[in-house]
Amino acid sequence: GWARAVRGLLLDVSGVLYDSGGDGGVPIAGSVEAVRRIKASGLKLRFCTNETQATREKFVKKLQGMGFDISVAEVTAPAPAACRILKERNLRPHLLVHDDLVPEFAEIDKANSNCVVIGDAAENFTYANLNEAFRVLIGMEKPVLISLGRGRYYKETDGLKLDVGAYMKALEYACDVQAEVVGKPSKAFFESALAEMGVPPQEAIMIGDDIVNDVGGAQRCGMRALQVRTGKYRPCDENHPHVKPDAYVNNLAEAVDILLQQL
Amino acid sequence: GWARAVRGLLLDVSGVLYDSGGDGGVPIAGSVEAVRRIKASGLKLRFCTNETQATREKFVKKLQGMGFDISVAEVTAPAPAACRILKERNLRPHLLVHDDLVPEFAEIDKANSNCVVIGDAAENFTYANLNEAFRVLIGMEKPVLISLGRGRYYKETDGLKLDVGAYMKALEYACDVQAEVVGKPSKAFFESALAEMGVPPQEAIMIGDDIVNDVGGAQRCGMRALQVRTGKYRPCDENHPHVKPDAYVNNLAEAVDILLQQL
Repeated sequence: GWARAVRGLLLDVSGVLYDSGGDGGVPIAGSVEAVRRIKASGLKLRFCTNETQATREKFVKKLQGMGFDISVAEVTAPAPAACRILKERNLRPHLLVHDDLVPEFAEIDKANSNCVVIGDAAENFTYANLNEAFRVLIGMEKPVLISLGRGRYYKETDGLKLDVGAYMKALEYACDVQAEVVGKPSKAFFESALAEMGVPPQEAIMIGDDIVNDVGGAQRCGMRALQVRTGKYRPCDENHPHVKPDAYVNNLAEAVDILLQQL
Repeated sequence: GWARAVRGLLLDVSGVLYDSGGDGGVPIAGSVEAVRRIKASGLKLRFCTNETQATREKFVKKLQGMGFDISVAEVTAPAPAACRILKERNLRPHLLVHDDLVPEFAEIDKANSNCVVIGDAAENFTYANLNEAFRVLIGMEKPVLISLGRGRYYKETDGLKLDVGAYMKALEYACDVQAEVVGKPSKAFFESALAEMGVPPQEAIMIGDDIVNDVGGAQRCGMRALQVRTGKYRPCDENHPHVKPDAYVNNLAEAVDILLQQL
């Protein structure tokens, strides 16, 4: 059923290709080979990540170091999408992001800020930095908050960490404003990944570990979506009240096995 | 109209009696004398605060230092209310609160925590502490989050600060849980203040600077409520979509003038 008439794949990265950790992370068994097999099959492929703790360059280097066949040009990530929005709307951001993400905004005018961009700032989520971003927002006549994702939390080798979505909610509540989310699960983000791949949604499959942001988001764009039982997957995801994947697979390797048999 | 048949007053403290600041704060003009006049009049009086940056002892000392006639026994505050709940339900809290509030929980068993209590932790709202509170919550089969208030922000002499409500929202979202709010605007909190005063809601008036937490909360308990134009009051509060005070007064002194004329 789910593997019919596929021309393109969107892959989530963290939790599908590798498990992240403070020290870098480790590939998930079979995933390095699975990416090679997808590329050899002639299927279109795009990596679709909400990663905002590093520039795409640095992120891709880390994955290459683990053995993955991946290049910067194949990655759809929130920061470049946010930069397009900032330029289109003449927005000058106050950045609350990870130090390593700042270079993605190098060409953006940041003087005299008229919006706040929040990413997974990790150690930069200090009391002082949150208050500062809050003051910038509350001082605007009509606060504009752009959030690079809306994830709740993620797993690192040293434990679970609050993701950008939690801090986004704090600022939303304090300023009585609704953030504009760039990144998964936003429709515009999936659509730009599909456009970059040149495949319509009905011929594409998203594979991810996040039931809401990967699976639910992709399905709302008309794509099929699989949930892997790796990364942040939890058994209770299979009873999710709103989202039901087109299929579960134990890991990326199993999904690719099934897909390639159908081709 | 609003001053008829009154037997008891509930007073918010910060923004009504004084303006807070990193250095302690300053009394609002006329408020020291207004408290004395209420006491001399024979009206029942209770101070009803969401203050959670200090024990009641320390808080009352600060107010006495400014000249206010106030004692610990006259103060209704969230931490003691939370302690009653913790004891009743055999809850052992992981505390994410201000250092100076910790003594209020001295008699509470905190080993092997089975809930999280969050207050206005201020400088204790670090990335590490928020992640730790999150991990305690997400590790429970049914997460219990008790929040000492749900304020959005407050003003100190060095600027606006995010209040406990913003951090409560972050944890609520990350854990998909609803916090139980102790303190204003919770009905149970106002009711315990009324019980301590021995006055039914229809004979009591709340006076506060917070349109939602003071005025709206008290009105939902069947009390009348005034908003003062001091503290965090903003002119746009007078167009609030849901809450309409029984009256506005410029400050506590004006409210007391009108009240005492009616007696």
